[in-house]
Amino acid sequence: MTFELQAQDPGSNARAGKVTTAHGVIETPIFMPVGTAATVKAVHQRELKEDIQAQIILGNTYHLYLRPGLDILEKAGGLHKFNGWDKPILTDSGGYQVFSLSGTRKIIEEGVKFKSHIDGSTHLFTPENVMDTQRTIGADIIMAFDECTPYPCEYDYAKNSMHRTHRWLKRCCERFDSTEGKYGFDQTLFPIVQGSTFRDLRTQSAEYIASMNREGNAIGGLSVGEPAEMMYEMTDLVCSILPKDKPRYLMGVGTPANILENIALGVDMFDCVLPTRNARNGMLFTTQGIINIRNQRWKDDFSPIDAELGGYTSTFYSKAYLRHLIHAQEYLAGMIASVHNLTFYLWLVKQAREQIKAGTFAAWKNVMVEKLMTRL
Amino acid sequence: MTFELQAQDPGSNARAGKVTTAHGVIETPIFMPVGTAATVKAVHQRELKEDIQAQIILGNTYHLYLRPGLDILEKAGGLHKFNGWDKPILTDSGGYQVFSLSGTRKIIEEGVKFKSHIDGSTHLFTPENVMDTQRTIGADIIMAFDECTPYPCEYDYAKNSMHRTHRWLKRCCERFDSTEGKYGFDQTLFPIVQGSTFRDLRTQSAEYIASMNREGNAIGGLSVGEPAEMMYEMTDLVCSILPKDKPRYLMGVGTPANILENIALGVDMFDCVLPTRNARNGMLFTTQGIINIRNQRWKDDFSPIDAELGGYTSTFYSKAYLRHLIHAQEYLAGMIASVHNLTFYLWLVKQAREQIKAGTFAAWKNVMVEKLMTRL
Ligand SMILES: [Zn+2]
Ligand SMILES: [Zn+2]
Repeated sequence: MTFELQAQDPGSNARAGKVTTAHGVIETPIFMPVGTAATVKAVHQRELKEDIQAQIILGNTYHLYLRPGLDILEKAGGLHKFNGWDKPILTDSGGYQVFSLSGTRKIIEEGVKFKSHIDGSTHLFTPENVMDTQRTIGADIIMAFDECTPYPCEYDYAKNSMHRTHRWLKRCCERFDSTEGKYGFDQTLFPIVQGSTFRDLRTQSAEYIASMNREGNAIGGLSVGEPAEMMYEMTDLVCSILPKDKPRYLMGVGTPANILENIALGVDMFDCVLPTRNARNGMLFTTQGIINIRNQRWKDDFSPIDAELGGYTSTFYSKAYLRHLIHAQEYLAGMIASVHNLTFYLWLVKQAREQIKAGTFAAWKNVMVEKLMTRL
Repeated sequence: MTFELQAQDPGSNARAGKVTTAHGVIETPIFMPVGTAATVKAVHQRELKEDIQAQIILGNTYHLYLRPGLDILEKAGGLHKFNGWDKPILTDSGGYQVFSLSGTRKIIEEGVKFKSHIDGSTHLFTPENVMDTQRTIGADIIMAFDECTPYPCEYDYAKNSMHRTHRWLKRCCERFDSTEGKYGFDQTLFPIVQGSTFRDLRTQSAEYIASMNREGNAIGGLSVGEPAEMMYEMTDLVCSILPKDKPRYLMGVGTPANILENIALGVDMFDCVLPTRNARNGMLFTTQGIINIRNQRWKDDFSPIDAELGGYTSTFYSKAYLRHLIHAQEYLAGMIASVHNLTFYLWLVKQAREQIKAGTFAAWKNVMVEKLMTRL
């Protein structure tokens, strides 16, 4: 993997760049749709590529490990072959999911023991086997096995957890560097900065992660319930330490406003379930603001979902029709809203990129944040 | 609406024809995907047109009347405008659905009183208001208000019900003929032959329906649980009475074998929820036979769903991937399987049409029925 820094905004720390992987180029800043179980929910692969114009998608190691399972994925020749998505893929480490299984998981130095949410069977994730698992899944970018601390978090817990994440990172790197990709293409490993909302811990962690000298770096443990201002403070701090010449990925973020603010702080890559999850509940992000399509207000509004955004889905179907579909609990409601929201997110980061390249990002961002978060 | 009889199979009563409506041409024999609530479940309008190549779809008056409701449909400019499907639409009369609400409906000479399954509110469907409702929905082909008798059915009940259906038909025709389409295009009314599984009643009913001299005729009350042989006996009898120069629509039928057998008896139009409902349960109709995609057998079969059928959905996605999606209860499972099954049904009637035109239908049909109903 390589990263080329193409432009820097004069009014902020926003950057435009180009990540090149074995499965193609990613133009940053970028949003990565989440494809938990080998599918971006309610979206055809063709729509993902042609309509949404996704450049990279995310897969969840925890889910893929349990189902379809590594034997099927390896027989298929990896996730790209299995689901037909031939552009870049990033997999998380499964850490976030297994730590979320609060009642049924146990952290030990070796790793984390947990029970499957599907059949209750017991499993152990270690830094080493999670590297092997992600080798088998075959993502282009794989993530270190870390603990994502909750918010709020006691200082001592956050500190101990951070150091364990650092020890685990060393084991991840050793295993990753002593193994090879299984399908003839290169994979790369991103380490993850932790440290909760404590400036000294975030500083220590960012310095440690930077010292590992990987091809890209991630920021974890944010967007877990802390105030947005606290998130931005941590991102700002961490970005000031992480190297400029490598991509920075902020995990699990966020709303359109969160994304623009974090781009301004120097983040290059994002993922979040928000656009697809909210879509299925009828919440639309549009170029004019936020729409709750369930509302009475849209019942006879036959205008397109988002004429300015463009694209088949957002211009072919009307607001009134989508409102009808969601009230009738039709499949097509989730299908239309998911494609729309993802198209919007990809449009948003593309606009941001153009503003950065034009040197006009900072002022544009302030106008857009307000506009996009207006409830229509 | 006009109908042109284009070819007749020398070895059977199968026919190829052309129905011309205000929204375009339908080449028969044809299968009409069911779009109950203004959407063919789990299928984008673009897929319906470009991938499945549907020529006409069906809407359900009962569902559309209750939701989105006639005020919304009229404001939209009719169902075509509301859902964006600009090719022909046929609506049923709502009779089948309200008669299925067995606990909560009451038949009187005036019509049927029933309670909404959505909010329990009370409504009355009459032959007259059902014509008005279908005028407002704006289908190209609208259906008479009839009673679809269950199977088995007492002779006396079937006879009384049939005569009521005939009396209601007269009222339907009077109302239809004294009103006009609301959106500037012509609509046509198809009457429905009833009479359960009794030869004398079916004969009487077919003669009565033929005497009404509408532009097309339908056969109802079949595929309601009776043995297939009994269905074919009734279809054969009714087709021998209905005029040759008008299209014949067999309502609610059926499996691929049912469709081919009824084409052989002279039916031109079909609709059924089977391809989409079974799709959502993992049952696929393919050019090689029937597949239950949930089965263990497909877990590492990375071949396309149906290479011979062709088309994006059936060739892009593998059996193993679809099996994974259905076990993971993903939206995409229903989406892929629905497009596949409907593509197959449209392919099947197109093949039948080509065989009829070539004069080779009868022999081809016998081979296909056996092949298509094989469980793989
Ligand atoms: Zn440390
Ligand atoms: Zn009669």
